[in-house]
Amino acid sequence: MINKQVLFTKRPIGIPEDSIWKHVESEVRDLQDNEILIQNHYISLDPAMRGWMNDARSYIEPVQLGEVMRAGTVGEIIKSNNKDYKVGQFVSGWGGVQQYSISTGDNYNKIYPGDMPLTRFLGYLGMPGMTAYFGILQEGKIKEGDIVLVSAAAGAVGSLVGQIAKIKGCRVIGIAGGKEKCKFLVDELGFDDAIDYKNEEIYTSLKDKCPNGIDVYFDNVGGEILDAVLTKINRNARIVICGAISQYNNKTKVMGPSNYMSLLVNRASMKGMVVFDYKENYMKALTDIATWFKEGKLKDNETVFEGIENFHEVFLKLFTGDKSGKLILKIN
Amino acid sequence: MINKQVLFTKRPIGIPEDSIWKHVESEVRDLQDNEILIQNHYISLDPAMRGWMNDARSYIEPVQLGEVMRAGTVGEIIKSNNKDYKVGQFVSGWGGVQQYSISTGDNYNKIYPGDMPLTRFLGYLGMPGMTAYFGILQEGKIKEGDIVLVSAAAGAVGSLVGQIAKIKGCRVIGIAGGKEKCKFLVDELGFDDAIDYKNEEIYTSLKDKCPNGIDVYFDNVGGEILDAVLTKINRNARIVICGAISQYNNKTKVMGPSNYMSLLVNRASMKGMVVFDYKENYMKALTDIATWFKEGKLKDNETVFEGIENFHEVFLKLFTGDKSGKLILKIN
Repeated sequence: MINKQVLFTKRPIGIPEDSIWKHVESEVRDLQDNEILIQNHYISLDPAMRGWMNDARSYIEPVQLGEVMRAGTVGEIIKSNNKDYKVGQFVSGWGGVQQYSISTGDNYNKIYPGDMPLTRFLGYLGMPGMTAYFGILQEGKIKEGDIVLVSAAAGAVGSLVGQIAKIKGCRVIGIAGGKEKCKFLVDELGFDDAIDYKNEEIYTSLKDKCPNGIDVYFDNVGGEILDAVLTKINRNARIVICGAISQYNNKTKVMGPSNYMSLLVNRASMKGMVVFDYKENYMKALTDIATWFKEGKLKDNETVFEGIENFHEVFLKLFTGDKSGKLILKIN
Repeated sequence: MINKQVLFTKRPIGIPEDSIWKHVESEVRDLQDNEILIQNHYISLDPAMRGWMNDARSYIEPVQLGEVMRAGTVGEIIKSNNKDYKVGQFVSGWGGVQQYSISTGDNYNKIYPGDMPLTRFLGYLGMPGMTAYFGILQEGKIKEGDIVLVSAAAGAVGSLVGQIAKIKGCRVIGIAGGKEKCKFLVDELGFDDAIDYKNEEIYTSLKDKCPNGIDVYFDNVGGEILDAVLTKINRNARIVICGAISQYNNKTKVMGPSNYMSLLVNRASMKGMVVFDYKENYMKALTDIATWFKEGKLKDNETVFEGIENFHEVFLKLFTGDKSGKLILKIN
């Protein structure tokens, strides 16, 4: 059985080029005791992957050169030498950008899709879902009536952040790139308003669309938008720092938020979060999110491409914004 | 009776020039019903005064052109038409840069110096004291064993922040300008170590003097030091934003902390504070601080100059650092 894999071979500077990847094919080896063979159906494409490519201290080890590129996956067990894992069991985990992976099962979670799409376990029932849930509820500490602003609002995390905030009775404004995405946020996901940062002047739009300021800002982008938002926050505002995608491909220094002294004036806080810290409570989050789906309060938001050979091209869509919601690649 | 006053007549750009002030002398008017006349002995000089000169939204109204310059004061009631305030009573309040002020008493606090120096009520028993106390305890949430770093550590707020952190069993490192101040912090105030930012390379010194990282950073300066500190914070670190004196006289944009994504990597928070928010608990703070003095655990740290005519020259020492601790001007 042939395993198509994508190896990480060179640390990029700025926007990654195709040449940093090596596509290889290898024979899947025999299983040893306790091992399982997983067929990875889908891989998750995440902005965080760009950070893992840098040889820098972070919340997780960088990917080493020559390794299969790290990626979240959902798949199915197709062989098992482990009595705890049956063939046919669906699992999610860190399978990487490869069609098959071998594990003792420790680093995989069993999932039970039932009538739900398997891809949802890379989205709202996966890491982006957990990030959104704990970020907006535990760190953003939203309460009914809060004015919540979210950037990359049409993205995998942002679109759930906004929907959860709506469920909790907040006024929700999303920032996204392009008229179509903004329309989608308001018409399909029920956001109260949206700002198209590609076609609107951000300071003016914040003034128009957040006339009563901002209580919670969930930030996925950093850069100029974060700086602009800082000028509009309310007393005791909470800024949740989830990412800074506008800065990930910088060749120069990250742009620091020049208006950060607004935190003082407004007694506001800016707090970073990493989803792994909430592991112990994932089950509660999964239950809530699944329930909201059943009640018709949530809508999926994902874009699925196909073919492991298209990995690089699809990966770049994270940064061009040429997709909506969770970006997924079907590889097997 | 002649009242020497300093009026604020022009909004400065960058470092204030002497020409923004107008020194005037006026006759003290007669008191009306309920009014008291206060002889202002000392005025407080604070970095925050620079912010009050800007015509910008902040935590307090800007000083209006033509007004007596705002300043905290301690003084003594020398005439009273108010049965609640007796002649001879010491008070602290917002008397401004003038030798006498008239009030109904509402905006003054009665103080009882006993054997304590009156100036302490502008320092550790005044706004700087309240700022340090609530900043490091309530916002910094220090606990025994924490590694606490404080900038402008030889200043009115910083020197108390460090002393309180020592009382609470923390390891305390101060950042100050010049060998003399650093020696003072360690030898006189009992800090564990000090960094002389004027003569040391900040990244190297942080590495050497905080080899186990930083749990709490109490920031009074902003700029490059904040940016450097962000690279050394520990998991769940708390950064208390109390001020950014390095940026107050900027003619260009404030320098934002380029390394702010360290907040994410380390699940750290950066929170602004304004001392007025803790009013309800001032009495608890005053009691604790007075007790620590009695127990010999605290040392005053102040520099007193004399003469209202020297106001401008003395005010600038806030920014040149040419003083130690609380900067005070005796004016009457």
